[in-house]
Amino acid sequence: MPSVDICFSPELLPLYQLEGKVAVVVDILRATSSIVTALAAGVTHIVPFSELEDCQALAAQGYLTAAERDGRQAAGFDLGNSPFGYLDGVLPVQGRGVAITTTNGTRALHLSLAADAVVIGAFLNLEAVAEFARQQNKDVVVVCAGWKGMFNLEDTVFGGALAERLAATFDTSSSDATLAALHLWQQAKPGLAGYLLQSAHVRRLNSLEANKDFDYCVQVDTHRIVPIWRDGRLVVNS
Amino acid sequence: MPSVDICFSPELLPLYQLEGKVAVVVDILRATSSIVTALAAGVTHIVPFSELEDCQALAAQGYLTAAERDGRQAAGFDLGNSPFGYLDGVLPVQGRGVAITTTNGTRALHLSLAADAVVIGAFLNLEAVAEFARQQNKDVVVVCAGWKGMFNLEDTVFGGALAERLAATFDTSSSDATLAALHLWQQAKPGLAGYLLQSAHVRRLNSLEANKDFDYCVQVDTHRIVPIWRDGRLVVNS
Repeated sequence: MPSVDICFSPELLPLYQLEGKVAVVVDILRATSSIVTALAAGVTHIVPFSELEDCQALAAQGYLTAAERDGRQAAGFDLGNSPFGYLDGVLPVQGRGVAITTTNGTRALHLSLAADAVVIGAFLNLEAVAEFARQQNKDVVVVCAGWKGMFNLEDTVFGGALAERLAATFDTSSSDATLAALHLWQQAKPGLAGYLLQSAHVRRLNSLEANKDFDYCVQVDTHRIVPIWRDGRLVVNS
Repeated sequence: MPSVDICFSPELLPLYQLEGKVAVVVDILRATSSIVTALAAGVTHIVPFSELEDCQALAAQGYLTAAERDGRQAAGFDLGNSPFGYLDGVLPVQGRGVAITTTNGTRALHLSLAADAVVIGAFLNLEAVAEFARQQNKDVVVVCAGWKGMFNLEDTVFGGALAERLAATFDTSSSDATLAALHLWQQAKPGLAGYLLQSAHVRRLNSLEANKDFDYCVQVDTHRIVPIWRDGRLVVNS
């Protein structure tokens, strides 16, 4: 029986074996929620960068550029880290490639590439990711982006939600991290938004835009796509 | 208002500022429970080592030596990591110094020395540690030893228990790690032993000796002492 493990911070990833496994990268607020949204809105592919300069350089190749630092859109970029950047119609996104860089999400993704398959998880596409994991039938490691390397509640609770969806055919009790995440998800489940409003990270995002983003990102199973890493870019798995 | 934060693994300690704060090092199974027990049983002081050889060298100076690797007593040492080594009367411990090395606990302690005060926490001396923290009135960081760098449930739940005891006069909501630990403690509190029996780490210690140790280590408030780091050794705070 394959297992579900959860890595609470990219800083702990060196302790995990990813070879032969499925890595589910999660940065609920907001990188992975935005990636799911962008690909569902018709973006053809997404190229993630660690550095602002490398990301911006792709504008010359016709890419839209998206950058966030410390929760804010970086100057000189087309988009920030809000999923509404792909929905509000201000910039046409259909058929475009997007170059992105975010504080935490990009780093978690780059550190996960040793896995057999690297996919992007969010509450928005929870069941789609669970279904992908069931089809692969391999060990799953949920890689939480965290906040600057620290544990955060929203990514952890997502890990618990995914573990619950997989519990019938995966071992979810061999890792204390998975047990803890399942317990936290059981507490959060009856009122996810209210539960996560306690989070220090959520309270950090206290602008009007951020509140709208938060309400959007805690929706469950609104999208049926799985973004997957293929040839150096994120595309819709098909 | 000072705050309570929790570091789930020594690997994450570089992200924490310890200067000016109280570090509470915890390795419930079993290093810090054994340290509390040893000092309460009349051991005068404890010197922790990372390496087996350095630890064993102190035998020549009249020290009792205690060593654990992968959950077992290391060959050639007087004691392992069981608290009953200080209670069963096989070796007289009163008035002796002890040199110890353990897989996880010693490492967590050595990485915590930048703090203003470094104390040893266990369920056994929970209230004594809480009282020490209230007297200091400084930020507290609970440093979980974990299991080979990984998150574990028992150290985390201790962190939640300590945060609950401090909640009246400390900020316990600015860290997602503290919030999560508090939530897990609330689930564990009505039946601590039963709750922790789910833990992967606990199930790993499945010998008769380990079961006896486990029952001992989940007792709350049985000891009123606070082991503190002073001049390169752990002694009873007075």
